[in-house]
Amino acid sequence: MRGPVLGWDVGGANIKAAIVGADRQSAPKVVERPFSLWRDPARLPAVLAEIADGVGGVGPLGAMAVTMTAELADCFATKREGVAFVLDAFRTAFPGVEIRVYGVDGRFRSTDDARQRPLEVAAANWRASATLVARTFPDALFVDVGSTTTDIIPIVGGRIAVEGTTDPARLRSGELVYTGALRTPICAVVRTVPFGGRRCRVAAEHFAVAADVHRWLERIDDNGYVCETPDGRGHSRAESGARIARIICGDLDMLTADDVTSIAEHVARAQVKQIKSGIRQVMRRLGPACPAVAVLAGQGAFIGRPAAEELGLTARDLASAIGSAAARAAPAAAVAYLLAEMDDVPSRAHLTRK
Amino acid sequence: MRGPVLGWDVGGANIKAAIVGADRQSAPKVVERPFSLWRDPARLPAVLAEIADGVGGVGPLGAMAVTMTAELADCFATKREGVAFVLDAFRTAFPGVEIRVYGVDGRFRSTDDARQRPLEVAAANWRASATLVARTFPDALFVDVGSTTTDIIPIVGGRIAVEGTTDPARLRSGELVYTGALRTPICAVVRTVPFGGRRCRVAAEHFAVAADVHRWLERIDDNGYVCETPDGRGHSRAESGARIARIICGDLDMLTADDVTSIAEHVARAQVKQIKSGIRQVMRRLGPACPAVAVLAGQGAFIGRPAAEELGLTARDLASAIGSAAARAAPAAAVAYLLAEMDDVPSRAHLTRK
Repeated sequence: MRGPVLGWDVGGANIKAAIVGADRQSAPKVVERPFSLWRDPARLPAVLAEIADGVGGVGPLGAMAVTMTAELADCFATKREGVAFVLDAFRTAFPGVEIRVYGVDGRFRSTDDARQRPLEVAAANWRASATLVARTFPDALFVDVGSTTTDIIPIVGGRIAVEGTTDPARLRSGELVYTGALRTPICAVVRTVPFGGRRCRVAAEHFAVAADVHRWLERIDDNGYVCETPDGRGHSRAESGARIARIICGDLDMLTADDVTSIAEHVARAQVKQIKSGIRQVMRRLGPACPAVAVLAGQGAFIGRPAAEELGLTARDLASAIGSAAARAAPAAAVAYLLAEMDDVPSRAHLTRK
Repeated sequence: MRGPVLGWDVGGANIKAAIVGADRQSAPKVVERPFSLWRDPARLPAVLAEIADGVGGVGPLGAMAVTMTAELADCFATKREGVAFVLDAFRTAFPGVEIRVYGVDGRFRSTDDARQRPLEVAAANWRASATLVARTFPDALFVDVGSTTTDIIPIVGGRIAVEGTTDPARLRSGELVYTGALRTPICAVVRTVPFGGRRCRVAAEHFAVAADVHRWLERIDDNGYVCETPDGRGHSRAESGARIARIICGDLDMLTADDVTSIAEHVARAQVKQIKSGIRQVMRRLGPACPAVAVLAGQGAFIGRPAAEELGLTARDLASAIGSAAARAAPAAAVAYLLAEMDDVPSRAHLTRK
């Protein structure tokens, strides 16, 4: 007897859920929802319940697999407080449902165990997706460019060969680069942009984000702009352009469309360089053992691809292996698969090949 | 007959007012108030009225002198819309009071004229303070490090010798550097910080601001932290330390006080370098005509001083010339003085020496 498994990746600004059906065969159904946890943490249980309803729920036989980065949100004084809050929200939203929490060691544990050792379950989402990717690509750099951050996870001989497991250690090792396709403030990416044939300093304000840049450059469309806009206005290309103009304290009365394009191209290019710097650092550490293939995932795979290719790596898409929706929500789908296969005793031997 | 003059510097995040009494002799009374205009623009008239009450009002004989940067706030689609909104707020708050608006050309105009040509009154506050400073220091770089931005205004032979007058032109010329003592997000200042003997990337999030750095380093105290905290918690040194730890996705369970200090010192040093880069650019443009004295003002004068001195300039404090409260709120005090002297026909010949 087995039911569906609902995988969760609970971030501070976005929540993703992926359901693996009881048949374990069809592609997972994936739901993404922007939710600014720090603004209204008390709503988390209701938001979780709505998302679960949106994928059909798991029923009495189902289980849930949870990974999170939401503990970093600044409504929590410490990660310990954040982990406990998120687990409480699951208990409130889904009484009676079996909930298993994924850890940086690659194992699931009970919510009680997770609460006891919060650093073992904080920000473990990268490990879930990398574990799944390793089945198909035993030698690869897994480059997952999300809305906010980029994970660069070396997989060598089928094993996850990271230097760091906590967020600070990963930021130091290059395995976590805090840049992404949507939420990243432009002032955190560049100090200057081209304007009028010269370099112009930018305003240190939350005036525009990466989503505006990629919307203006038509790399994402209205539906791809799944985060809040900095000024509360809409997602249209013109509205994104106005936000981009504001980063040099200008407006669309002062800047031409060409001015905005040259700023946007400069910022997009700077994001590629940020990701290259992380990949390069990982490549140097691994030396000759470093894989020659980069497996790309996430909403920002289009930023990760040039970064990988310019460093001589062969780029492959995770989407072609597991479906584009699941690749965009890789950790949520991954924890669902990983928990599902643990439940499936008859097929476990088949699925876990090491 | 003449009354008091109330000078205003209306920013998007802070409003400053300075009153010059009918006697024109005593030091101006200054009020500063943080107000996040973009969050609740409709409250502006009430906030203006409260601030005016706090300095005692201007009475039927008084006048008001206005300069603003609030038009840049992203609740306004364009500067034109922002200027009109701020002027409407003054009309609502102070019916019947004479209101004069200062322009980048150094002249006052009516609110109707200001509305017609908004770019002439947008972000003109630097010119007001520099005009006043030029009386005492006819050859100087005026370096005003505020909560959010730094103005670097060359004064040569008693004249304001800027390259740019609009915000974008000034960001390009080095005359405006978007870094300040309080509101500047740390992720807009540095890409990496030292941690555990190595460089660690920072989170591109609004987790900590310059005020946290200077609070931790005890360059400002609780009362000097006059801006919102990123996480809505308090201004204590420990709370600032927790916010600083979060910029590498850490918390005070993971980082020691020494870790936080080395991060804070690195960020503070990076702010000095940002201001040096602006000063250096202005010095290069002026060449041999460049003054050898820097006159420092603003809440962040302590950041401007090392920047100026390391470039070989002699640092002077505006506070010693006009009083420390007025130096902190330089543009508000300056527009008040400048309008007051225009009203004072008998003494005009004396005060306006050019």
